[in-house]
Amino acid sequence: MGRITARRPVTRLTLGEPPNTRVDTLAVEEPLEIRIAGRPLTVTMRTPGHDVELAAGFLVSEAVISRGDQFRTAIHCGGPGAGGEENTYNVLDVALAAGVAPPSTDIARAFYTTSSCGMCGKASIEAVETVSVYDVASDAATVAAERLVTFPDRLRAEQAVFDKTGGLHAAALFDAATGELLVSREDVGRHNAVDKVIGWAVLHDRLPLRGTVLQVSGRASFELVQKATMAGVPMLAAVSAPSSLAVELAQSAGLTLVGFLRGTSMNIYTRADRITQEPAHALAKDDRYVTR
Amino acid sequence: MGRITARRPVTRLTLGEPPNTRVDTLAVEEPLEIRIAGRPLTVTMRTPGHDVELAAGFLVSEAVISRGDQFRTAIHCGGPGAGGEENTYNVLDVALAAGVAPPSTDIARAFYTTSSCGMCGKASIEAVETVSVYDVASDAATVAAERLVTFPDRLRAEQAVFDKTGGLHAAALFDAATGELLVSREDVGRHNAVDKVIGWAVLHDRLPLRGTVLQVSGRASFELVQKATMAGVPMLAAVSAPSSLAVELAQSAGLTLVGFLRGTSMNIYTRADRITQEPAHALAKDDRYVTR
Repeated sequence: MGRITARRPVTRLTLGEPPNTRVDTLAVEEPLEIRIAGRPLTVTMRTPGHDVELAAGFLVSEAVISRGDQFRTAIHCGGPGAGGEENTYNVLDVALAAGVAPPSTDIARAFYTTSSCGMCGKASIEAVETVSVYDVASDAATVAAERLVTFPDRLRAEQAVFDKTGGLHAAALFDAATGELLVSREDVGRHNAVDKVIGWAVLHDRLPLRGTVLQVSGRASFELVQKATMAGVPMLAAVSAPSSLAVELAQSAGLTLVGFLRGTSMNIYTRADRITQEPAHALAKDDRYVTR
Repeated sequence: MGRITARRPVTRLTLGEPPNTRVDTLAVEEPLEIRIAGRPLTVTMRTPGHDVELAAGFLVSEAVISRGDQFRTAIHCGGPGAGGEENTYNVLDVALAAGVAPPSTDIARAFYTTSSCGMCGKASIEAVETVSVYDVASDAATVAAERLVTFPDRLRAEQAVFDKTGGLHAAALFDAATGELLVSREDVGRHNAVDKVIGWAVLHDRLPLRGTVLQVSGRASFELVQKATMAGVPMLAAVSAPSSLAVELAQSAGLTLVGFLRGTSMNIYTRADRITQEPAHALAKDDRYVTR
């Protein structure tokens, strides 16, 4: 696990009992600076590990890349710093393939599109939506409700670090037709956990992620729905509540959004037609890639 | 409540039962663009309401202001947009007082300080730490453990919107000596909830927040510890786990960091000397502002 967890002394205090000091395991949080061809693009606070996936997934979310061959290489920036110490794992320099336009490093880059007045006069969703090259609405995949309700526990079973620290978010990608867990990732930041999953997929040339369910451990925010649509994921399931804008974007993009997926129940906010109640074996595998 | 919650139809599905459709209440999430003198600074996804506090608290966190008189006015940008629609509540233009340097809008602004190599060769915490003008370490305030354990329930009792939606984070400021709840705020983003609390404080000329406890509903990340130190808050208590960097910064800044504050127990990660086990009434009120 190395730098994914850290051990620190902690004073445990319970009312009416003498305090005692023990060693506790914490989730590691460190900054990662992502550069494109040497130019700083962003800094995110993340759990170290799968940094290349994190960078690749972030670039998918930001509409910079949509295929694996657009991401050429990524190297952790090396060399000693001013103080002579080595700390080469918190800067990642990405080289894009020839012909791929690098993202703007304007701080407002993700939010300004056509209106000179910024967000004035635009609906919220138009102002912040990044348009996906993938058509999520046309994905004819379905998932059996009986299968979907198993995903939170299966995600939880993957959360090795959470068990030690109680401090990590998780995201996993499941094949809707077979129930296969394709990949799962943990991070102190829930957006990062999703970026790592999507980064894994783009680097394995699996975009668009047709016929999949993205399962997340917490709530469903606008940004998580955005990330799903940018990667071509047709179904997003969250253990907790969605926000209003998450539902709006899911509706606009034709993504199935499930919240409060707990036990044997769920709330389906959009595109409920993708959730079936037949037994899992009744789903024909060939249905997965049929578009309407 | 107006725009704080939204109502949407939802399909409730429980295995073995017919699905039923009902109306559900969601936490509203909308983008807020913060401008300084007309120039875009940042966009945050937030729950509408207390936007001026949010902007003021954000500016404290970013080391742009540290006193209320440095924040002159804030107006929601009006006027029709390109499409003729009105949407004047998601852009807030802040005027700083004369002589207050506006923040850089360089995307890497918060992260580059002195090293030409960015974060290479710097310890993580040095690379991302924003130095507070307030000396948190010297705050001699203490809080009785018996009082501290009541804060999560008192914060929860303030969470009107959470009860309806299950979708909001919350933060509250308590007076350590008297236990008085000074302010509480909710938001879809936990950083925003804290910014709103700190913004309330700076706009009421209460910085530095000596002798206070900042109670948050979730985990304690690096950024929340950062926000506390920038506002001069000496104690931060979280219901869930802290990250490694949160503990590092708390230690470096001399802030008391409490995690897993549940029932009658807590984990104290740093500056445990501020948590006392005497009954609350044994704390002399005059001790609050004594510095060592």
